[in-house]
Amino acid sequence: MTGQDVIARFTALLGEKRVVTDADDIAPWLSDWRGRYHGAASAILQPETTEQVAAAVRLAADLSVPLVPQGGNTSMVGGATPPADGSALILSLRRMNHIRSLSPDDNLAVCEAGVILSNLHDAAAAAGRRFPLSLGAKGSATIGGLISTNAGGTQVLRHGTMRALVEGLEAVLPDGGIFHGLDALRKDNRGYDIKQLLIGAEGTLGIVTAASLRLVPAIAARAVGWIGVPSPADALALLRLCEAHLGDSVEGFEVIADDGLGHVLSHIPGTRCPIATRTPWHVLIEVDHGDLRDPGPAEQLEGALAEALERGIAVDAAIAANEAQAEAFWRIRESLSESERAQGPALQYDVSVPVARMPAFMVDAAAAAERAFPGTTASSFGHLGDGNVHFHVRAPRGTTDGPGWIAAHGQAINAFVHDAVVAAGGSISAEHGIGQMKRAELGRLASPARLHALRAIKAAFDPQGIMNPDKLIPRPEEG
Amino acid sequence: MTGQDVIARFTALLGEKRVVTDADDIAPWLSDWRGRYHGAASAILQPETTEQVAAAVRLAADLSVPLVPQGGNTSMVGGATPPADGSALILSLRRMNHIRSLSPDDNLAVCEAGVILSNLHDAAAAAGRRFPLSLGAKGSATIGGLISTNAGGTQVLRHGTMRALVEGLEAVLPDGGIFHGLDALRKDNRGYDIKQLLIGAEGTLGIVTAASLRLVPAIAARAVGWIGVPSPADALALLRLCEAHLGDSVEGFEVIADDGLGHVLSHIPGTRCPIATRTPWHVLIEVDHGDLRDPGPAEQLEGALAEALERGIAVDAAIAANEAQAEAFWRIRESLSESERAQGPALQYDVSVPVARMPAFMVDAAAAAERAFPGTTASSFGHLGDGNVHFHVRAPRGTTDGPGWIAAHGQAINAFVHDAVVAAGGSISAEHGIGQMKRAELGRLASPARLHALRAIKAAFDPQGIMNPDKLIPRPEEG
Repeated sequence: MTGQDVIARFTALLGEKRVVTDADDIAPWLSDWRGRYHGAASAILQPETTEQVAAAVRLAADLSVPLVPQGGNTSMVGGATPPADGSALILSLRRMNHIRSLSPDDNLAVCEAGVILSNLHDAAAAAGRRFPLSLGAKGSATIGGLISTNAGGTQVLRHGTMRALVEGLEAVLPDGGIFHGLDALRKDNRGYDIKQLLIGAEGTLGIVTAASLRLVPAIAARAVGWIGVPSPADALALLRLCEAHLGDSVEGFEVIADDGLGHVLSHIPGTRCPIATRTPWHVLIEVDHGDLRDPGPAEQLEGALAEALERGIAVDAAIAANEAQAEAFWRIRESLSESERAQGPALQYDVSVPVARMPAFMVDAAAAAERAFPGTTASSFGHLGDGNVHFHVRAPRGTTDGPGWIAAHGQAINAFVHDAVVAAGGSISAEHGIGQMKRAELGRLASPARLHALRAIKAAFDPQGIMNPDKLIPRPEEG
Repeated sequence: MTGQDVIARFTALLGEKRVVTDADDIAPWLSDWRGRYHGAASAILQPETTEQVAAAVRLAADLSVPLVPQGGNTSMVGGATPPADGSALILSLRRMNHIRSLSPDDNLAVCEAGVILSNLHDAAAAAGRRFPLSLGAKGSATIGGLISTNAGGTQVLRHGTMRALVEGLEAVLPDGGIFHGLDALRKDNRGYDIKQLLIGAEGTLGIVTAASLRLVPAIAARAVGWIGVPSPADALALLRLCEAHLGDSVEGFEVIADDGLGHVLSHIPGTRCPIATRTPWHVLIEVDHGDLRDPGPAEQLEGALAEALERGIAVDAAIAANEAQAEAFWRIRESLSESERAQGPALQYDVSVPVARMPAFMVDAAAAAERAFPGTTASSFGHLGDGNVHFHVRAPRGTTDGPGWIAAHGQAINAFVHDAVVAAGGSISAEHGIGQMKRAELGRLASPARLHALRAIKAAFDPQGIMNPDKLIPRPEEG
């Protein structure tokens, strides 16, 4: 069957307005947003209902045509870019963008896959609730993509990743069958948890069409603090001390090296160091209460910090006096990547290690990388509370040809960093998933048992290999 | 190969002391603890290390000998009883009973599969922490079994089921490969979550050998209250009100019909109604703080209950004045099943529905069952906060031949209750799993997509069907 015939079949099934074939309309969706991966596809399918998705998948299965599901196309690992050979069609979920229901009483929102994250934030806020997961791409990223990549963010310490927030799921499996699992059941032991399997599967086992999502109370009071500490080990001691004082209400706990802060102060206008003393490491903490109680978060945090200063865990500390100051503290954290980029070309890694090992990893792995690749500067910052390290290796000072440096050294540095992560019992993908970018490294580093299980599940669900081909599962030659 | 030859091979592999062949020693492990299921096995394998488990599974795979993993043998659904034809061996994890590590700083305990739940409770308490999952069989139930059945209990509202408490897992897959996943990573997006797949798999996809488990702070202060309410709908309104006042600190929220309370007061010596007014329904609430703060849980609960009384959601309320009273309140709840049994033969169901639908289900399903089966009395109680209903249908008054009544009417009543659960968007197994008991009903009621997915995963992991045969997955003729 020719490509034209295939498109004619999908058009007959879905109607012309749900099949985009104009090359100019398709073009923006063929590359990832950072321009690293480029694919080809002769059409984008845009179903509007779960039944239409199911019909499209059934037809794709009949014709053995691969499908690449796409939401906001904000993948960091090329997870939504179609193959370059044009063999696949894109299946966009963007028109399935309704919030089917939102019940503040039940703390539940039922969202279709194409709902944009910031729209859910707004809807929850209007109902006096909060959806406690956010990230930079919130204005484009969709619920389906966030579920399929098990997205994280800065609030994972308290509220968990997307996995912890999905209470029910609806999906179309690779044979076109609909998995009806939207009912939010806190206790349900009817065998293997299919929902958990689809979360983080990057569209390789089926297409998420809707989800029941957990809401939490709106923030009634918050306190944001900046603390100078001697080392990452002190930062961890501070986290434990804050947890003892503040319990579950610690929502964010970020660790930043002083040189990272320095880059922000140099490159981002209007920023200033929140404390008078410059210490080797810094902590940004956010404490949130869902109710108004006495003592409030600022008083509680003050108590914890007084003890930390007395015990020498902290050297200096400031609590934001108002919302503007709190925003200014967070702006430093959110500007770290941008100011790092202003320092020159760098390789950036999204990895995680067990929380207890994170202080040593932040110091030792950076030193080891600098020794192994002379002239480079390695640094790390991250969410200490959940073990997520952002690890950067910057090209030697004066490097002007960034792509050339990456072409020459990228693979060796990748392998070095990932080996260090594996040695520390960590994960080579904390938040972003595997997609195309980390597929070969997953093949190289995963245990035989894990690889065997991944491949067996993929083959069981998708024997034809039509769901998001060439993503996540290492190729045979890759391990 | 004869049965004797098979045992000789396992004895050569594991050593004589790790292969039990004496019929008297085997006998207690061939039936479930309620005496409903009876099997046969010529040996019990008792490995002491993960490597020995892996070696035993490899040999079983080579010889195509089915294995039935067993912990405390406390399954409620015949999940650990071997097949009656004697084709399988029992693989007991009871000798793998070490707590490999326990770190209060990291709030983590690494336990082998055979650790008994109450031993973990004790170890956590000795370190100033708490493992927040408990159930009646805690003196026998093992960590491996609790994980394999995704056990629940009364604290699920706040802390989740076993699934939420397992941070890492080690398991032997059906080909004898070891899945090494003990590192506790809060963020890890390396493809399908194999850990989640093994939790609740009832030993049909492999054998859990160890787990990293989350600990929480010890209880610093608690308050237990008893509240009389007009209806289950008022109980739900009370739960929402308490959540608004008390946030995350509501740890238990049980709803009890007045006739259930009546049975306890009639049959259990030393019990008395905690409030002066007899209302149609009752709520037992527990509020726990992990820290000492002002207001404490009793003051917070008092504030919530004052509002509930004023709004007419509650009719009467009492807060336990001391630990002895708190225990007395809980004793009523814990005596419900025993006092129900004293009322005569009954069928008992462990089901769940979405929380929002639970008030209507408790009233309507009971009334419908009594209409459909004249002379029976149906009642329900349960964990309102997590949608778990314990639904009982008692034989008509004067029925003396309980087994006869169940033989005559059991299947019809089962089908009636399960149909009602499915109609309410619920699960026919909230806590106990499927095992042998609910396998046919799962086959009858699960959607084609769910059944297909269950069977595909089972075939992918265990193509020979040697892991806990005839459990969980409906037979071909069952749906």
